[in-house]
Parts: sequence; C-alpha cells; structure tokens
Amino acid sequence: MLENIHEPGQIKDMSIKEMETLAGEIRRLLIDTVSKRGGHLAPNLGMVELTLAMHKVFNSPEDKLIFDVGHQAYVHKILTGRYERFETLRSAGGLSGFPRRKESEHDAFSTGHAGTAISAALGMARARDLMGRQYSVVAVVGDGALNCGMCYEALNDAGHTHTPMIVILNDNAMSISTNVGAMAKHLTRLRQSPAYRDTKRTVRGALERIPVVGVRMARGLERLKKALKSMLVSDQFFEALGFEYQGPVDGHDLKQLIEVLTRAKACQEPVLLHVVTQKGRGYAYAENHPDVFHGVAPFYVDSGQVMGKKIKTNGSVMARKLVELAKQDSRIVAITAAMPGGTGLDKFEKIFPERFFDVGITEEHAVTLAAGMAASGMRPYFGVYASFLQRSYDQILHDVCLDKLPVCLMVDRAGLVGEDGATHQGVYALSYLRHAPNMTVALPRDGNELKRMVELSRKMEGPLAVCYGKAMEDLGEGMRQTGDLEVGSWQRLIEGDEVVILAVGRMVKYALRASIILAGNGICCGVIDARFVKPMDREMLLQTAKHARLLVTLEDFCLQGGFGSMVLEVLAAANVRCPVLNLGVPDRFVEHGSLEWQLKQCGLTPEQVAQAILDKRGRAQ
Amino acid sequence: MLENIHEPGQIKDMSIKEMETLAGEIRRLLIDTVSKRGGHLAPNLGMVELTLAMHKVFNSPEDKLIFDVGHQAYVHKILTGRYERFETLRSAGGLSGFPRRKESEHDAFSTGHAGTAISAALGMARARDLMGRQYSVVAVVGDGALNCGMCYEALNDAGHTHTPMIVILNDNAMSISTNVGAMAKHLTRLRQSPAYRDTKRTVRGALERIPVVGVRMARGLERLKKALKSMLVSDQFFEALGFEYQGPVDGHDLKQLIEVLTRAKACQEPVLLHVVTQKGRGYAYAENHPDVFHGVAPFYVDSGQVMGKKIKTNGSVMARKLVELAKQDSRIVAITAAMPGGTGLDKFEKIFPERFFDVGITEEHAVTLAAGMAASGMRPYFGVYASFLQRSYDQILHDVCLDKLPVCLMVDRAGLVGEDGATHQGVYALSYLRHAPNMTVALPRDGNELKRMVELSRKMEGPLAVCYGKAMEDLGEGMRQTGDLEVGSWQRLIEGDEVVILAVGRMVKYALRASIILAGNGICCGVIDARFVKPMDREMLLQTAKHARLLVTLEDFCLQGGFGSMVLEVLAAANVRCPVLNLGVPDRFVEHGSLEWQLKQCGLTPEQVAQAILDKRGRAQ
Repeated sequence: MLENIHEPGQIKDMSIKEMETLAGEIRRLLIDTVSKRGGHLAPNLGMVELTLAMHKVFNSPEDKLIFDVGHQAYVHKILTGRYERFETLRSAGGLSGFPRRKESEHDAFSTGHAGTAISAALGMARARDLMGRQYSVVAVVGDGALNCGMCYEALNDAGHTHTPMIVILNDNAMSISTNVGAMAKHLTRLRQSPAYRDTKRTVRGALERIPVVGVRMARGLERLKKALKSMLVSDQFFEALGFEYQGPVDGHDLKQLIEVLTRAKACQEPVLLHVVTQKGRGYAYAENHPDVFHGVAPFYVDSGQVMGKKIKTNGSVMARKLVELAKQDSRIVAITAAMPGGTGLDKFEKIFPERFFDVGITEEHAVTLAAGMAASGMRPYFGVYASFLQRSYDQILHDVCLDKLPVCLMVDRAGLVGEDGATHQGVYALSYLRHAPNMTVALPRDGNELKRMVELSRKMEGPLAVCYGKAMEDLGEGMRQTGDLEVGSWQRLIEGDEVVILAVGRMVKYALRASIILAGNGICCGVIDARFVKPMDREMLLQTAKHARLLVTLEDFCLQGGFGSMVLEVLAAANVRCPVLNLGVPDRFVEHGSLEWQLKQCGLTPEQVAQAILDKRGRAQ
Repeated sequence: MLENIHEPGQIKDMSIKEMETLAGEIRRLLIDTVSKRGGHLAPNLGMVELTLAMHKVFNSPEDKLIFDVGHQAYVHKILTGRYERFETLRSAGGLSGFPRRKESEHDAFSTGHAGTAISAALGMARARDLMGRQYSVVAVVGDGALNCGMCYEALNDAGHTHTPMIVILNDNAMSISTNVGAMAKHLTRLRQSPAYRDTKRTVRGALERIPVVGVRMARGLERLKKALKSMLVSDQFFEALGFEYQGPVDGHDLKQLIEVLTRAKACQEPVLLHVVTQKGRGYAYAENHPDVFHGVAPFYVDSGQVMGKKIKTNGSVMARKLVELAKQDSRIVAITAAMPGGTGLDKFEKIFPERFFDVGITEEHAVTLAAGMAASGMRPYFGVYASFLQRSYDQILHDVCLDKLPVCLMVDRAGLVGEDGATHQGVYALSYLRHAPNMTVALPRDGNELKRMVELSRKMEGPLAVCYGKAMEDLGEGMRQTGDLEVGSWQRLIEGDEVVILAVGRMVKYALRASIILAGNGICCGVIDARFVKPMDREMLLQTAKHARLLVTLEDFCLQGGFGSMVLEVLAAANVRCPVLNLGVPDRFVEHGSLEWQLKQCGLTPEQVAQAILDKRGRAQ
C-alpha cells in the first residue's frame, strides 16, 4: 500500500483496518531502512498509529503539524510524499533525520533540539488568529522534552491567552533513557489512573446531584462540597497552566486516537492530549531495549546486533578517567542532561550512583545547578553535547564565569557531527565559549590528551571546557606526551617554519597528514597542537609567527569568532604581521551526511588543506 | 537601631515589636538612598519584613540565602554588615545593586538574571547532603521570575529527588510591570483563597472521619471518597512537581512569617512557601506606581518626581517608528519578555494591543514564538535587552537562523550599561550574534540611523538584529544621511587615511571626538561608521585598508570575537596586511559604575582612544 501513498490526504479515505495494515508496512520499512542507515528507530516505531491518526484527522500542510525534537517524524515523512526517498535518510543530499521546512511543505517547522515545538506552534496559532485564517496547529512533544523549561514557558503563555492549539504529549515514559523529574512521576500517576477523567466527571456529577438542603449529610459535607468545587477548578498541573487536559489515551489504538483528535480539533481552548505510546513497538529488540534503539547505528534486523565493530568514544575515555579521579576526590560529581549513555557518564553512575545527577533535558538548569554545587565546595562535571550546551550560554557566562566557579564542561560532539546534520552541529562551541571571561577552553587531539585534560581539571580554580568529538583518536606512541599538562601550553609536533599549521582537536590528525602531502611538494610544514584555545600559548604563537612565512589555523569549528579569529586578535594586539590562513567551517549551516563528507564540504580534508596552503602561498608571494 | 546592626545574628534576639521599628528604619533608608542613587526601590520596600524574618529564623552565612534576580536583596545587604556602605550603592567601587559573592560571605550566590536561584539552591542543598553537612538553603523567587523555564526545570529536578530546600515565592502580582501567564492567574486563585489550605486539611480530616460502612451515605459517596483521595495526592501545580506547598502567607506580618519559616526549616522535603507581599510598601508613590518605582533614577522623595530631565531613549525612537510601519503592514507584531516600558514597546501596545505580546520573563520562548509567527507569514519584532537575549542564544541559531526566518531582534542596552553592572552588560551581543549564519547585525550611531534601520527591517528576508544602548544620540544634521539604507553598507563620515577609525554604534561619536584630538596632534584621522557588523562593507573595508597606515576598530563590545575580530578575519581572508588596533571591552567582567566610568575602565574615552592610536603608531613604525 505504502508505495501508492503520495500525499497524506489519501489516508482520509482509509478504514481503520486498512490503516492497521499500513501501520504494519510502515514498521517494516522503518526497521529495514534504519537497520541500513542508522537513525532513530524506537521513537518512530512508537509513533506509527499516532501519526496515521493525525493525518486522518488533520489536513497537512494547511494544518500545521510540528514534531518536537523531530527524531520521531519519520512516519510523517513517509506519509507526506517522501516514501521513495526514505532510503536516503541521513545521507548527504538525502532526507534529513529531522523535519526541515526546506525539505517539504509538510514540515511546518524545523526542529532538532528539544522543547521548541510548543513555542513555534503558539506562534503559528497566533499568526492564524491575527490573519483571520482557519487551521489547526498541533505540537507533538515527548514526555522527556517536557522537562525543558521552554515547554513550560510556552504552555504558560498559551494557557494565559486561551489560544486554541493542541499539544500532544507523546508519553512513552522514556527520555533517551528512562525519563526523570517529578513531572515524570506525575505522568505515571496519570497513566496509572486511566479512569481518572471519568471519575472526575462522576465527582462533578455527584456534586451536582447532592442537594444542599433536605438530606442528612455526614458532618462537614457541605463544607467539603465547597472545597471540592474549588479544587476541581485547578486540580491538575496542566489545568493550572490554562490547558484542558485530555487523556490518557492508548497511543496504539487507532479508533480511540481518531476520536480524541477529532474532539481536540473542535476545541476552542488550548488542549493537552496525553497519549501513551510504547517506544520500539513492533520490533522485539527495540521494545526490550528502547534506549539502545533510540538512536542506533546500522544493525542486523534478525539479531538486533549493531554492525561493524564498536568505535571507542571520547566519552568513555573521559568517564573512565573521571571515575579514577572521583575515587580519590569525594567532591567530584557528574551531571548529565538525559544523556548518561551518549556522554559515557553511565560508567560514572554505576560506580557512584549517589554522586551522579541526571537532570533530564534541562541544560540551563544543569549548568546553574553545577554552579551552585561548585559554590558549595563540590567539583561538578557536566557531560553534554556542544550543540545542546548552546542552551546554557547565558548560564555559563552569568552563573559560572562571573564568579570563576570550578565547573567542568565536558563538551562532547564538538565540531562537525555527521549524520545528525545542521541542527546538531557542534561547530559554534569555540565561538560561544571563548569570549566568556575566566573560561579555559581545551581540545584534545586524541584519547591520551583527553585523559591528561581530565587529570588537569582537578587543579582548575575556575571554569574549564574540554571539547571533543565522538570518536576517540589515537595518534600513537610517537606523539604521546607525559607529565603534567600546563594550562595554556601548546605542543609543537612537527618542526618547520616555512608554513606552520596551528590545529585544534581532531584536526591535528589532518594537519599531520597535510604536512606530509606538503613535504611531497617540497614545502616544510610545521604542525602545532594548539590544544588550549583559551588561554593561548602566546609565547609559542608569537615566536612561531615571527619566523613562519605562513601561519595556518585549522579547526572544524566555525571561522566566525572561532580559534583562527582568536589567533588573529592576538597577533594584531602584538603588532605581529604574518600572513595567516584561517581554515574552518564557513558561515553557513552544514547539512547532514557523513563526517568525511562534511569535512570535504568545508574544505578540511588533508588534501584540501594542503591545496589551500599551496594556493595561499601563491597569492601571498 | 540600624547603625548598631553589624551582623544578622543580632536580629535573633529582637522582639517582633523591635523588628517592626527596625522595618520602619529600613524603609526610610531605602527611600532615602535610592532617591539619591537610583536603583530598585519598589521590590525592596516589599521585602522588608520577609528579609527580617528570614534572618530571624536562619543563620546566614551558614544557611544559604539566595535571591533570584537579586534586585530585591537591598534589605539583606543592609542587615549583613553593609549598612554603612549602603550609600555607595551602584556607584563605582561601591556596593553592587545585586548580590555578589565577592562582596560578602552572606551573598551565597551572585544573581542578576531571572530564574537562576532555584537551580543554584538545589546545587547547594545537594552539596550539603553529599558532604554530610547541616544547613538550610532558601531561594527567594518573585512571581514574575517564576515564568522562567529554568525555575520549572529546577523545581522538577528538586521535587524528583526530594532534596530538602525552601523556595519562597515572593508574590506581589507584578513582574516589572503586571505579571502575565497562566501561572499568574493560578497564583491569584491561590491568593484569593487564603483559607484554602485549612479547607484542604479539613477535607482530609473529614474523609478520614467518614466511616466506610455503617452509615447512610449519598449515592456514590464511597466512589467520591476514593476519587477525592487520589486528587488530594496531586491537587496543585507545585505538588505535581514534588514540592510541599505552604501558604499563602501575609508577607508583612512578621509573626506569621517567622512561624511559617520555622515550620519550613524543619521540613525534610522541598517546600514552596507562597508569601504575598506588596510592591512599594510604605512609600505611597511606589505603592501606587510599582512599575515606575521598580527600577528608578534619582527622585525627589516628597513628590515622587524623577530628578533631571528625562533622556530620550532609543527604545522610544524604535517603538515610534515601528508603530508607523505597523500602520501600513498588518503582519507586524511586537513581543516583549516582561519589559514593555524598558524596551519602549508600551507605545506599540497602546496602538496595537492585539498585535502586542508580553510573554513574561521567557526569552527562550519569545524567540521561538517569533520564529513560529515568522514561519506563518507575520513580521515579529522582539524588543529585548542584550544581556537577557543571551538566554535565547540557542533559539536564535536553531529556530530563527537555520530557516532564515524574518525575525527582528531589537537589542536594547547593547554594549556597556552603567550602574546595573557585570550581570547586565550587553557587551557580548556582537560576539554571540555575529557567528550565526544568515544573521544581519546592525548598530545605529544615533536616533536617525536607528529609524532608518527599523525602516530597513521591512525589507529583510532573514533575521536582523539591531543593537543599541539606552540613550538616544543625535549627531546633528551634518551627519544625517537620507534615502534608503543598504544592508551591509558603511558610511565614511570623515575623510582621512593616515589613521582610519571603524566605529560601531555609540562609539561613532567617540571616534569623531578622537579624530578631532588627533587632528590637534597633526594626524589626519578618518572615521567610518561601520554600521553593519554583518554583513560588512567588504569593499569599503578593503579599499580603506589598502590606503590607511593604521586601521582602528572601536566598539563598546567585548574584543573577543567582536567587531574588531571580524575585521581581522576579513582582512586575513583577503590577504590584506594593514596594522590594526582593536579597541573595545577587554576580557573581564566590567563592574558597576557610571557608563562614563566604565568606558574609561576599558580605555574607550575619546582621549584614551586618541592616545592609544598615538602609542600604536609609535610602536608600529
């Protein structure tokens, strides 16, 4: 059936039975495609019926369907004319793993980070009302994303102005791993009393039926009645925020879903519809290990085993070293924002459960929480992805750096990130971290240096950010430095002063390769690991600049305000005028594709780096 | 009495009567000092009894008292050994207008931006529990700040782990102006039923007393009872978040306050204590106009009139122009995050109430809301202070710039801000805005240019940020340019190529003055208004750099990654090697004091600029 669905309107004529058949086809397609391409499997398996029901009841693109985070929008993509291209998922030039406005008119809003959908939906609903138009606006939000402060801000605003809109709470009791927070417990209570709303209705009815006079009542019953009435006005969290709460509804029961969505569509108030889904539904391995199959690399469908050998990650190197330090220093605590696995900190949790804090998807809170702990004598480490740490920009400046508090940011997925694409690039990290006063910013070229940086963190008296990509590099014994790492020190890896490349993080490896290519062209190219971006090794920089014919800065971070920019500032301030070539990520969003493809797009492969240097020398002479 | 209070412990021995006398003295001191220095009056007048009661019950600095935003901590400062220095409030070298850890051990956490206190308090409470120590942690949060998503994130986390701590909700039904949001209505409901808690207790009692069997009950009463019990578990917003709600309490009744604080102190769960205060209490003008006296310039105590003549603000210029455009373009809407007055947008609200959205202190939500509106065909303008826009860093990148949505950010209080000091500096704005792809960043040198930039905004097809300080400049007829402003165009104001100053925003005026000083030294100094930081006037820059002996960049923004840094990037990429002097805010937090004092601290007065240029020429030659 699937191959004949070219636009979502076709679902409107289907019977429930046909939709159920279609659901089966979709599940097979999801499992098949993600097993080859990698991607978010479990969240999408849980969304099949809900997405079908949404397209049965609403008319996309007139009605606006917004998927928070967007990793659960695969089914929506398949149903909105992208079935044939679905196999290109997450590959260069193919479909994005997230909704993108430029990909389809059915993607009403581009998403990627958690918690934005309700705000965007409210904006669209207000635009509709101001323009006198008629359409529905629906935001689908997971229970994990609901921890985001932004969701609360948006609910509070929408409820206040009574703007009609529908928020579907897709409650699978999971964030990426188990969901946390008091709200999660609250939702559990709601889930466990499916008859709750009926009971409430009964209570209301019963109250109305109790005559005030003329009946023998238990003592205080009249007073009780009065109190109850006031409680019924605001008896629930969402109702305090001005939303009509409906649910919980079984998210795999198409008939029920269509009914409640139809009711919600007719409502003239903001509605929160609580839908309970099962993450990984329909694929046993994903049902049993929804965390593993949340975002997954290519795998064998039959065995559920991931293909290829597991890469060693910087996160696990960091976490192992942190555990080692924590054994000696009881002040060390670790914080994650719903990413114990992704950041490697699950290893820390296992050994020190009481010193580990998963705060849910709340990066803002996480950083200020860490600041509070640091202000009280602890040594907090926040393991977080560079792209998500963008949420904490203000807190880093205002709560950590202002008082020079010893908070360590372990910034994973820094630089280019590959398949997750534009919304998840960690390329802004240097630009947004390096101008914060009191901040130290370090980038390890490989696993060994990462260990030394974590070791160094013990001695820091102020904030430290260590930025690294997912995969651990190993540049081998020859490059290994031992002894204590000094803050702000660079390391000269290859001598040479015709051209000197100053590289950071994973680009050190590329610089070494470029240097070999250049040697083949008769150019003596030195390489320096500029492992501290802030503070810099000013002495090594100035000395090098004095002798070099060309300085090259090399980073997989954005050129605007990044490492290269900082080198220029230091040289200008020191009155040193040496030709500088800044290589890095240009001023545009880098789309999804493999990391290698992205590096190439940015002109950052060793061959491209070598060629750029040859070109620049040509021009500079 | 006040002059004899050197540390807060002295309050412990006081009777209620003595405390009341002291409260009167404090109010007189507050009115007297703020009338001379300017500052936050109304919030502090409302906090007198609450702060006294806090110091009666808790032992600072062992117990940690954290004031969210911190503009309401004056009374706390007076009572914690800073009475004598209180007259230095907000002046250079004097007391900060906000709690600062480096100012006193009684300032447990430095604050300034809204919504951070609960996170920090939770961090301190967790540190306490991990270290096996005993102290209380108290966060005071206004009802306005409670709109911040961060508060919700922190409550949700604290409630989840049952960490004992006290959140005092200081509810004066005001943000800076009237508070908004569904939560505000919820609090009103709570306030209006002061007997609510008692009733709830009665209900609970009544339920327990109703025998299950053996009594004639109204039909369904047993079922009713069951339903009621489940509702009592989670009948309130804060209880859904795992907090025990207590209140509402009269915030000016010392006896009651001391009682409830003592009870809360003993509680082994997170407690939210709802205290109702009156903003401006005890000073008639402030009681009647709490918004005017929220943050106020020096004023006459007898008449409540602000001293000196009112300065013309950029905010009002912007708003007037926006109203003009909005009359012709119905797609234009304005958004503020609880600052209708400060941003000037109250003027817009008056004319277009239905196209004006005060979303409360929720900068994150505000930006994504604007993105949603822009995606649906509206033209949203978000008026916001540069320092508070830091909260929206991720939303600007991810929700606005990724899809190049036409959202206009009217960034007020950009650059140095004067008396509010380190927490409120708008000096990072260029560094955090200019590396976002698709963003246009403009800075007007005076009111006339600001109008032209607002006019230009109509034609923008992508995001635009216009950054300006509070006070409107007027550089006079001679400097006025007419006609359409072209995106990315600079303007040469003074010819000259021995030295050329590229200045942005308010620093253009300073560049002109420095140029005159230099002329007196026989140096021909050109001045260019680099009004677009992104995109730059590349052509004018490169041409100027080719001829100039020295280029000077001048900004009151941080040097790291700012405008000057961008000039260096462009020059390096173009292979132009001209000596460049970058003048701006150095890499440290600039403390409170007058704007002039701050400019001097940064070496940015016309005399200092001229001198720096003379020095650089000496060295460069």
